[in-house]
Amino acid sequence: MEKKVIVLASGGLDSTTVLGIAHQNGEEILALSFDYGQRHRIELESAKKITQFYRISHKIIRLDLRQIGGSALTDEIDVPKDRNLNEMSSASVPITYVPGRNTIFLSYAMAVAETILSSVIYIGANVLDYSGYPDCRPEYLKAFEDMANLAMATREKNRPQLEIRAPLLYLTKGEIVRKGRELNIPFQLTHSCYDPNPDGESCGRCDSCLLRKKGFSEAGLQDPILYVKE
Amino acid sequence: MEKKVIVLASGGLDSTTVLGIAHQNGEEILALSFDYGQRHRIELESAKKITQFYRISHKIIRLDLRQIGGSALTDEIDVPKDRNLNEMSSASVPITYVPGRNTIFLSYAMAVAETILSSVIYIGANVLDYSGYPDCRPEYLKAFEDMANLAMATREKNRPQLEIRAPLLYLTKGEIVRKGRELNIPFQLTHSCYDPNPDGESCGRCDSCLLRKKGFSEAGLQDPILYVKE
Repeated sequence: MEKKVIVLASGGLDSTTVLGIAHQNGEEILALSFDYGQRHRIELESAKKITQFYRISHKIIRLDLRQIGGSALTDEIDVPKDRNLNEMSSASVPITYVPGRNTIFLSYAMAVAETILSSVIYIGANVLDYSGYPDCRPEYLKAFEDMANLAMATREKNRPQLEIRAPLLYLTKGEIVRKGRELNIPFQLTHSCYDPNPDGESCGRCDSCLLRKKGFSEAGLQDPILYVKE
Repeated sequence: MEKKVIVLASGGLDSTTVLGIAHQNGEEILALSFDYGQRHRIELESAKKITQFYRISHKIIRLDLRQIGGSALTDEIDVPKDRNLNEMSSASVPITYVPGRNTIFLSYAMAVAETILSSVIYIGANVLDYSGYPDCRPEYLKAFEDMANLAMATREKNRPQLEIRAPLLYLTKGEIVRKGRELNIPFQLTHSCYDPNPDGESCGRCDSCLLRKKGFSEAGLQDPILYVKE
Protein backbone atom coordinates (compact mmCIF):
# COMPACT_ATOMS: atom_id res chain seq x y z
CA MET A 1 0.00 0.00 0.00
CA GLU A 2 1.46 3.33 -1.06
CA LYS A 3 1.06 6.55 0.84
CA LYS A 4 -2.25 8.32 0.35
CA VAL A 5 -2.95 9.73 -3.11
CA ILE A 6 -5.50 12.41 -3.98
CA VAL A 7 -8.01 11.86 -6.79
CA LEU A 8 -10.09 14.75 -8.10
CA ALA A 9 -13.52 13.14 -8.22
CA SER A 10 -16.35 15.02 -9.91
CA GLY A 11 -18.73 12.09 -10.04
CA GLY A 12 -18.36 11.89 -13.82
CA LEU A 13 -17.22 9.19 -16.20
CA ASP A 14 -13.60 10.27 -16.51
CA SER A 15 -12.78 10.87 -12.86
CA THR A 16 -14.55 7.65 -11.86
CA THR A 17 -12.41 5.72 -14.34
CA VAL A 18 -9.38 7.37 -12.73
CA LEU A 19 -10.66 6.27 -9.31
CA GLY A 20 -10.91 2.74 -10.72
CA ILE A 21 -7.31 2.94 -11.91
CA ALA A 22 -5.96 4.24 -8.57
CA HIS A 23 -8.03 1.64 -6.75
CA GLN A 24 -6.66 -1.15 -8.92
CA ASN A 25 -3.14 0.13 -8.21
CA GLY A 26 -3.89 -0.62 -4.56
CA GLU A 27 -3.43 2.97 -3.49
CA GLU A 28 -4.91 4.55 -0.41
CA ILE A 29 -7.17 7.23 -1.85
CA LEU A 30 -8.56 10.53 -0.68
CA ALA A 31 -11.23 11.60 -3.18
CA LEU A 32 -11.62 15.36 -3.44
CA SER A 33 -14.78 17.00 -4.80
CA PHE A 34 -15.74 20.65 -5.14
CA ASP A 35 -19.06 22.25 -4.33
CA TYR A 36 -18.39 25.37 -6.41
CA GLY A 37 -21.78 26.71 -7.32
CA GLN A 38 -22.18 24.44 -10.35
CA ARG A 39 -25.70 24.17 -11.75
CA HIS A 40 -25.22 20.40 -12.03
CA ARG A 41 -24.57 20.15 -8.29
CA ILE A 42 -26.22 16.72 -8.46
CA GLU A 43 -22.81 15.41 -9.56
CA LEU A 44 -21.74 15.66 -5.91
CA GLU A 45 -24.34 13.04 -4.98
CA SER A 46 -22.79 10.79 -7.60
CA ALA A 47 -19.30 11.46 -6.25
CA LYS A 48 -20.50 10.56 -2.76
CA LYS A 49 -22.10 7.29 -3.86
CA ILE A 50 -19.02 6.36 -5.88
CA THR A 51 -16.66 6.91 -2.94
CA GLN A 52 -19.00 4.80 -0.80
CA PHE A 53 -18.89 2.12 -3.49
CA TYR A 54 -15.08 2.10 -3.27
CA ARG A 55 -15.09 2.61 0.54
CA ILE A 56 -12.59 5.45 0.33
CA SER A 57 -12.25 8.79 2.15
CA HIS A 58 -14.11 11.68 0.56
CA LYS A 59 -13.64 15.38 1.18
CA ILE A 60 -15.93 17.97 -0.38
CA ILE A 61 -14.44 21.45 -0.48
CA ARG A 62 -16.90 24.32 -0.60
CA LEU A 63 -15.98 27.38 -2.63
CA ASP A 64 -18.04 29.66 -4.78
CA LEU A 65 -16.89 30.26 -8.32
CA ARG A 66 -20.05 32.27 -8.95
CA GLN A 67 -18.06 35.09 -7.35
CA ILE A 68 -15.97 35.07 -10.52
CA GLY A 69 -18.63 34.38 -13.13
CA GLY A 70 -18.23 34.18 -16.88
CA SER A 71 -19.49 30.62 -17.44
CA ALA A 72 -22.70 28.83 -18.36
CA LEU A 73 -21.94 26.29 -15.63
CA THR A 74 -22.16 28.82 -12.80
CA ASP A 75 -24.15 31.74 -14.26
CA GLU A 76 -27.64 32.18 -15.64
CA ILE A 77 -26.39 31.53 -19.16
CA ASP A 78 -27.89 28.76 -21.31
CA VAL A 79 -25.81 25.60 -21.71
CA PRO A 80 -25.20 25.09 -25.44
CA LYS A 81 -26.90 22.02 -26.96
CA ASP A 82 -26.35 19.82 -30.00
CA ARG A 83 -22.91 21.17 -30.85
CA ASN A 84 -20.94 19.43 -33.57
CA LEU A 85 -18.63 16.93 -31.88
CA ASN A 86 -15.98 17.25 -34.57
CA GLU A 87 -15.69 20.97 -34.03
CA MET A 88 -15.65 20.87 -30.25
CA SER A 89 -11.99 20.57 -29.47
CA SER A 90 -10.71 22.69 -32.36
CA ALA A 91 -13.21 25.54 -32.24
CA SER A 92 -13.03 28.39 -29.76
CA VAL A 93 -13.43 27.68 -26.05
CA PRO A 94 -17.13 27.18 -25.23
CA ILE A 95 -19.19 29.16 -22.75
CA THR A 96 -19.30 26.15 -20.38
CA TYR A 97 -15.60 26.79 -19.71
CA VAL A 98 -15.23 28.08 -16.13
CA PRO A 99 -12.31 30.54 -15.95
CA GLY A 100 -9.58 29.21 -13.70
CA ARG A 101 -11.56 26.19 -12.55
CA ASN A 102 -8.93 23.48 -12.92
CA THR A 103 -6.22 25.78 -11.59
CA ILE A 104 -8.29 26.60 -8.51
CA PHE A 105 -9.19 22.91 -7.98
CA LEU A 106 -5.58 21.79 -8.40
CA SER A 107 -4.42 24.58 -6.06
CA TYR A 108 -6.72 23.30 -3.33
CA ALA A 109 -5.62 19.73 -4.05
CA MET A 110 -2.00 20.86 -3.78
CA ALA A 111 -2.72 22.51 -0.42
CA VAL A 112 -4.46 19.36 0.86
CA ALA A 113 -1.56 17.24 -0.47
CA GLU A 114 0.86 19.41 1.46
CA THR A 115 -1.20 19.10 4.63
CA ILE A 116 -1.57 15.29 4.49
CA LEU A 117 1.93 14.78 3.04
CA SER A 118 0.64 13.25 -0.16
CA SER A 119 2.74 13.54 -3.29
CA VAL A 120 0.36 12.35 -6.00
CA ILE A 121 -2.73 14.03 -7.46
CA TYR A 122 -4.77 12.12 -10.04
CA ILE A 123 -6.95 14.08 -12.47
CA GLY A 124 -9.23 12.83 -15.26
CA ALA A 125 -8.14 15.38 -17.87
CA ASN A 126 -8.07 14.17 -21.45
CA VAL A 127 -7.56 15.92 -24.75
CA LEU A 128 -8.83 13.71 -27.58
CA ASP A 129 -12.61 13.88 -27.18
CA TYR A 130 -13.06 16.99 -25.07
CA SER A 131 -14.63 20.41 -25.05
CA GLY A 132 -11.42 22.29 -25.79
CA TYR A 133 -10.81 23.67 -22.31
CA PRO A 134 -7.21 25.00 -22.21
CA ASP A 135 -6.64 23.78 -18.65
CA CYS A 136 -6.90 20.12 -19.65
CA ARG A 137 -3.87 20.08 -21.95
CA PRO A 138 -0.67 18.21 -21.07
CA GLU A 139 1.53 21.32 -21.26
CA TYR A 140 -0.76 23.02 -18.76
CA LEU A 141 -0.65 20.07 -16.34
CA LYS A 142 3.14 19.95 -16.55
CA ALA A 143 3.37 23.69 -15.87
CA PHE A 144 1.08 23.30 -12.86
CA GLU A 145 3.26 20.52 -11.51
CA ASP A 146 6.40 22.65 -11.89
CA MET A 147 4.74 25.60 -10.17
CA ALA A 148 3.42 23.42 -7.33
CA ASN A 149 6.85 22.04 -6.60
CA LEU A 150 8.11 25.59 -6.08
CA ALA A 151 5.07 26.63 -4.04
CA MET A 152 5.18 23.94 -1.41
CA ALA A 153 7.10 24.22 1.82
CA THR A 154 10.13 22.03 2.23
CA ARG A 155 9.22 21.23 5.81
CA GLU A 156 10.17 17.64 5.26
CA LYS A 157 13.55 17.18 3.66
CA ASN A 158 13.76 14.53 0.96
CA ARG A 159 10.04 14.59 0.41
CA PRO A 160 9.18 13.34 -3.08
CA GLN A 161 8.13 15.94 -5.64
CA LEU A 162 4.44 16.41 -6.26
CA GLU A 163 3.28 14.51 -9.29
CA ILE A 164 0.12 15.22 -11.30
CA ARG A 165 -1.09 11.98 -12.91
CA ALA A 166 -3.54 12.14 -15.80
CA PRO A 167 -3.86 8.51 -16.94
CA LEU A 168 -6.66 9.27 -19.45
CA LEU A 169 -4.83 12.10 -21.18
CA TYR A 170 -4.49 10.47 -24.59
CA LEU A 171 -7.51 8.13 -24.54
CA THR A 172 -10.57 8.64 -26.72
CA LYS A 173 -13.96 8.62 -25.02
CA GLY A 174 -14.52 5.11 -26.37
CA GLU A 175 -11.25 3.93 -24.84
CA ILE A 176 -12.18 5.54 -21.52
CA VAL A 177 -15.49 3.66 -21.46
CA ARG A 178 -13.72 0.43 -22.35
CA LYS A 179 -11.17 1.04 -19.60
CA GLY A 180 -13.99 1.73 -17.14
CA ARG A 181 -15.72 -1.51 -18.16
CA GLU A 182 -12.50 -3.47 -17.73
CA LEU A 183 -12.16 -2.04 -14.20
CA ASN A 184 -15.85 -2.61 -13.44
CA ILE A 185 -16.41 0.99 -12.41
CA PRO A 186 -20.00 1.76 -11.33
CA PHE A 187 -21.20 3.50 -14.52
CA GLN A 188 -24.73 3.58 -13.13
CA LEU A 189 -23.61 5.92 -10.33
CA THR A 190 -21.78 8.42 -12.54
CA HIS A 191 -23.18 11.75 -13.72
CA SER A 192 -21.90 13.74 -16.70
CA CYS A 193 -24.68 16.12 -17.80
CA TYR A 194 -24.21 19.90 -17.42
CA ASP A 195 -27.93 20.54 -17.50
CA PRO A 196 -29.93 17.73 -15.87
CA ASN A 197 -33.67 18.02 -15.26
CA PRO A 198 -35.02 18.25 -11.69
CA ASP A 199 -35.24 14.43 -11.52
CA GLY A 200 -31.53 14.21 -12.29
CA GLU A 201 -32.06 12.85 -15.80
CA SER A 202 -29.37 13.83 -18.29
CA CYS A 203 -30.27 16.14 -21.18
CA GLY A 204 -28.42 14.10 -23.79
CA ARG A 205 -27.56 17.21 -25.78
CA CYS A 206 -24.91 19.23 -23.91
CA ASP A 207 -21.21 18.75 -24.77
CA SER A 208 -20.72 16.46 -21.82
CA CYS A 209 -23.69 14.20 -22.72
CA LEU A 210 -22.68 14.12 -26.40
CA LEU A 211 -19.16 13.03 -25.54
CA ARG A 212 -20.44 10.42 -23.10
CA LYS A 213 -22.84 8.97 -25.66
CA LYS A 214 -20.06 8.88 -28.24
CA GLY A 215 -17.89 6.95 -25.77
CA PHE A 216 -20.50 4.29 -25.02
CA SER A 217 -21.35 4.00 -28.70
CA GLU A 218 -17.69 3.52 -29.70
CA ALA A 219 -17.23 0.95 -26.94
CA GLY A 220 -20.37 -0.88 -28.02
CA LEU A 221 -21.85 -0.66 -24.53
CA GLN A 222 -25.21 0.37 -23.14
CA ASP A 223 -25.13 3.47 -20.90
CA PRO A 224 -27.11 2.57 -17.75
CA ILE A 225 -27.99 6.15 -16.73
CA LEU A 226 -31.31 7.84 -17.47
CA TYR A 227 -31.73 10.41 -20.22
CA VAL A 228 -34.65 12.79 -20.64
CA LYS A 229 -37.22 11.27 -23.03
CA GLU A 230 -37.12 13.13 -26.36
CA MET B 1 -4.91 55.16 -18.62
CA GLU B 2 -4.06 51.51 -19.10
CA LYS B 3 -6.56 48.69 -19.03
CA LYS B 4 -7.61 47.54 -15.59
CA VAL B 5 -4.95 45.85 -13.45
CA ILE B 6 -5.57 43.62 -10.45
CA VAL B 7 -3.78 44.27 -7.15
CA LEU B 8 -3.84 41.66 -4.38
CA ALA B 9 -4.64 43.88 -1.39
CA SER B 10 -4.44 42.35 2.08
CA GLY B 11 -4.62 45.66 3.94
CA GLY B 12 -0.98 45.28 5.01
CA LEU B 13 2.10 47.40 4.52
CA ASP B 14 3.46 45.62 1.45
CA SER B 15 0.29 45.34 -0.61
CA THR B 16 -0.65 48.94 0.23
CA THR B 17 2.74 50.10 -1.04
CA VAL B 18 2.03 48.13 -4.22
CA LEU B 19 -1.35 49.88 -4.50
CA GLY B 20 0.52 53.18 -4.17
CA ILE B 21 2.85 52.17 -7.01
CA ALA B 22 0.02 51.06 -9.33
CA HIS B 23 -1.89 54.21 -8.45
CA GLN B 24 1.10 56.41 -9.25
CA ASN B 25 1.45 54.60 -12.58
CA GLY B 26 -2.01 55.92 -13.39
CA GLU B 27 -3.50 52.48 -13.75
CA GLU B 28 -7.14 51.60 -13.35
CA ILE B 29 -7.12 49.24 -10.38
CA LEU B 30 -9.30 46.43 -9.12
CA ALA B 31 -8.16 45.58 -5.59
CA LEU B 32 -8.77 41.95 -4.66
CA SER B 33 -8.95 40.77 -1.04
CA PHE B 34 -9.66 37.36 0.44
CA ASP B 35 -11.86 36.52 3.39
CA TYR B 36 -10.32 33.10 3.96
CA GLY B 37 -10.93 32.32 7.62
CA GLN B 38 -7.86 34.21 8.83
CA ARG B 39 -7.78 34.97 12.56
CA HIS B 40 -6.63 38.52 11.73
CA ARG B 41 -9.76 39.13 9.69
CA ILE B 42 -9.56 42.76 10.80
CA GLU B 43 -7.10 43.25 7.92
CA LEU B 44 -10.12 43.25 5.60
CA GLU B 45 -11.41 46.41 7.29
CA SER B 46 -8.04 47.98 6.57
CA ALA B 47 -8.17 46.85 2.95
CA LYS B 48 -11.62 48.39 2.60
CA LYS B 49 -10.57 51.74 4.07
CA ILE B 50 -7.46 51.80 1.89
CA THR B 51 -9.41 51.19 -1.32
CA GLN B 52 -11.81 53.96 -0.25
CA PHE B 53 -8.79 56.23 0.32
CA TYR B 54 -7.67 55.54 -3.27
CA ARG B 55 -11.25 55.54 -4.63
CA ILE B 56 -10.70 52.25 -6.47
CA SER B 57 -12.87 49.17 -7.03
CA HIS B 58 -12.62 46.51 -4.37
CA LYS B 59 -13.71 42.89 -4.57
CA ILE B 60 -13.59 40.60 -1.54
CA ILE B 61 -13.62 36.92 -2.42
CA ARG B 62 -14.90 34.55 0.26
CA LEU B 63 -13.30 31.17 0.58
CA ASP B 64 -12.48 29.06 3.57
CA LEU B 65 -8.95 27.81 3.93
CA ARG B 66 -9.85 26.37 7.35
CA GLN B 67 -11.14 23.45 5.25
CA ILE B 68 -7.50 22.70 4.53
CA GLY B 69 -5.92 23.52 7.87
CA GLY B 70 -2.33 23.16 8.92
CA SER B 71 -1.58 26.79 9.82
CA ALA B 72 -1.52 29.03 12.90
CA LEU B 73 -3.28 31.71 10.83
CA THR B 74 -6.42 29.64 10.30
CA ASP B 75 -6.34 26.98 13.02
CA GLU B 76 -6.38 27.04 16.80
CA ILE B 77 -2.60 26.98 16.92
CA ASP B 78 -0.64 29.70 18.75
CA VAL B 79 1.04 32.33 16.57
CA PRO B 80 4.79 32.25 17.37
CA LYS B 81 6.15 35.36 19.11
CA ASP B 82 9.55 37.02 19.49
CA ARG B 83 11.29 34.94 16.83
CA ASN B 84 14.79 35.92 15.84
CA LEU B 85 14.55 38.14 12.75
CA ASN B 86 17.87 36.96 11.37
CA GLU B 87 16.76 33.36 11.39
CA MET B 88 13.34 33.95 9.92
CA SER B 89 13.98 33.61 6.22
CA SER B 90 16.67 30.95 6.41
CA ALA B 91 15.13 28.66 9.03
CA SER B 92 12.38 26.18 8.28
CA VAL B 93 9.00 27.42 7.14
CA PRO B 94 7.04 28.71 10.16
CA ILE B 95 3.66 27.49 11.36
CA THR B 96 2.02 30.74 10.18
CA TYR B 97 2.58 29.51 6.62
CA VAL B 98 -0.80 28.63 5.07
CA PRO B 99 -0.40 25.70 2.64
CA GLY B 100 -1.26 26.79 -0.88
CA ARG B 101 -2.44 30.25 0.11
CA ASN B 102 -0.64 32.34 -2.50
CA THR B 103 -1.35 29.76 -5.20
CA ILE B 104 -5.05 29.74 -4.36
CA PHE B 105 -5.16 33.56 -4.20
CA LEU B 106 -3.30 33.93 -7.50
CA SER B 107 -5.55 31.29 -9.09
CA TYR B 108 -8.63 33.31 -8.18
CA ALA B 109 -6.90 36.49 -9.38
CA MET B 110 -6.08 34.74 -12.66
CA ALA B 111 -9.73 33.71 -13.05
CA VAL B 112 -10.92 37.26 -12.36
CA ALA B 113 -8.29 38.61 -14.78
CA GLU B 114 -9.60 36.30 -17.47
CA THR B 115 -13.19 37.38 -16.80
CA ILE B 116 -12.48 41.15 -16.89
CA LEU B 117 -9.81 40.80 -19.62
CA SER B 118 -7.05 42.14 -17.42
CA SER B 119 -3.49 41.04 -18.12
CA VAL B 120 -1.62 42.31 -15.06
CA ILE B 121 -1.70 41.08 -11.46
CA TYR B 122 0.31 42.99 -8.87
CA ILE B 123 1.41 41.19 -5.69
CA GLY B 124 3.38 42.48 -2.70
CA ALA B 125 5.66 39.45 -2.38
CA ASN B 126 9.22 40.16 -1.23
CA VAL B 127 12.10 37.96 -0.21
CA LEU B 128 14.65 39.97 1.73
CA ASP B 129 12.92 40.57 5.07
CA TYR B 130 10.25 37.89 5.09
CA SER B 131 9.02 34.87 6.94
CA GLY B 132 10.49 32.34 4.51
CA TYR B 133 7.24 31.31 2.82
CA PRO B 134 8.16 29.36 -0.35
CA ASP B 135 5.34 30.89 -2.38
CA CYS B 136 6.86 34.37 -2.24
CA ARG B 137 10.03 33.54 -4.14
CA PRO B 138 10.73 34.89 -7.65
CA GLU B 139 11.09 31.43 -9.21
CA TYR B 140 7.66 30.51 -7.84
CA LEU B 141 6.05 33.68 -9.22
CA LYS B 142 7.59 33.06 -12.64
CA ALA B 143 6.35 29.45 -12.64
CA PHE B 144 2.86 30.63 -11.74
CA GLU B 145 2.92 33.12 -14.61
CA ASP B 146 3.98 30.38 -17.06
CA MET B 147 1.26 28.04 -15.81
CA ALA B 148 -1.40 30.77 -15.96
CA ASN B 149 -0.60 31.57 -19.56
CA LEU B 150 -1.30 27.95 -20.45
CA ALA B 151 -4.45 27.77 -18.31
CA MET B 152 -6.30 30.71 -19.74
CA ALA B 153 -8.63 30.47 -22.70
CA THR B 154 -7.52 32.09 -25.89
CA ARG B 155 -10.97 33.52 -26.54
CA GLU B 156 -9.43 36.76 -27.66
CA LYS B 157 -6.70 36.33 -30.21
CA ASN B 158 -3.63 38.51 -29.72
CA ARG B 159 -4.47 39.14 -26.10
CA PRO B 160 -1.35 40.08 -24.13
CA GLN B 161 0.12 37.41 -21.88
CA LEU B 162 -0.72 37.56 -18.20
CA GLU B 163 2.03 39.26 -16.22
CA ILE B 164 2.61 38.90 -12.47
CA ARG B 165 4.28 42.07 -11.17
CA ALA B 166 6.02 42.00 -7.79
CA PRO B 167 7.62 45.45 -7.54
CA LEU B 168 8.81 44.94 -3.94
CA LEU B 169 10.49 41.61 -4.58
CA TYR B 170 14.05 42.71 -3.80
CA LEU B 171 13.36 45.55 -1.36
CA THR B 172 14.19 45.37 2.35
CA LYS B 173 11.43 46.23 4.81
CA GLY B 174 13.15 49.59 5.37
CA GLU B 175 13.10 50.31 1.65
CA ILE B 176 9.43 49.33 1.45
CA VAL B 177 8.56 51.80 4.22
CA ARG B 178 10.62 54.51 2.52
CA LYS B 179 8.88 53.76 -0.78
CA GLY B 180 5.50 53.94 0.96
CA ARG B 181 6.43 57.29 2.53
CA GLU B 182 7.52 58.66 -0.85
CA LEU B 183 4.16 57.64 -2.32
CA ASN B 184 2.25 58.98 0.70
CA ILE B 185 0.45 55.70 1.29
CA PRO B 186 -1.96 55.77 4.26
CA PHE B 187 0.23 53.91 6.80
CA GLN B 188 -2.31 54.67 9.53
CA LEU B 189 -4.92 52.54 7.73
CA THR B 190 -2.71 49.47 7.22
CA HIS B 191 -2.74 46.34 9.38
CA SER B 192 0.06 43.76 9.58
CA CYS B 193 -0.36 41.84 12.86
CA TYR B 194 -1.24 38.13 12.77
CA ASP B 195 -2.61 38.19 16.31
CA PRO B 196 -4.27 41.51 17.14
CA ASN B 197 -6.21 42.01 20.39
CA PRO B 198 -10.00 42.48 20.28
CA ASP B 199 -9.53 46.27 19.93
CA GLY B 200 -7.48 45.70 16.80
CA GLU B 201 -4.19 46.68 18.44
CA SER B 202 -1.14 44.90 17.04
CA CYS B 203 0.76 42.45 19.26
CA GLY B 204 4.18 43.75 18.28
CA ARG B 205 5.71 40.31 18.66
CA CYS B 206 4.57 38.07 15.79
CA ASP B 207 6.77 37.76 12.66
CA SER B 208 4.65 40.27 10.79
CA CYS B 209 4.86 42.91 13.57
CA LEU B 210 8.60 42.34 14.04
CA LEU B 211 9.25 42.82 10.32
CA ARG B 212 7.07 45.94 10.25
CA LYS B 213 8.84 47.48 13.25
CA LYS B 214 12.20 46.71 11.64
CA GLY B 215 11.06 48.48 8.47
CA PHE B 216 9.94 51.66 10.25
CA SER B 217 13.08 51.65 12.38
CA GLU B 218 15.37 51.30 9.34
CA ALA B 219 13.48 54.06 7.53
CA GLY B 220 13.72 56.32 10.61
CA LEU B 221 9.96 56.82 10.66
CA GLN B 222 7.30 56.60 13.35
CA ASP B 223 4.70 53.87 12.82
CA PRO B 224 1.28 55.51 13.31
CA ILE B 225 -0.65 52.32 14.21
CA LEU B 226 -1.44 51.21 17.77
CA TYR B 227 0.45 48.42 19.50
CA VAL B 228 -0.63 46.60 22.65
CA LYS B 229 0.94 48.25 25.72
CA GLU B 230 3.67 46.03 27.16
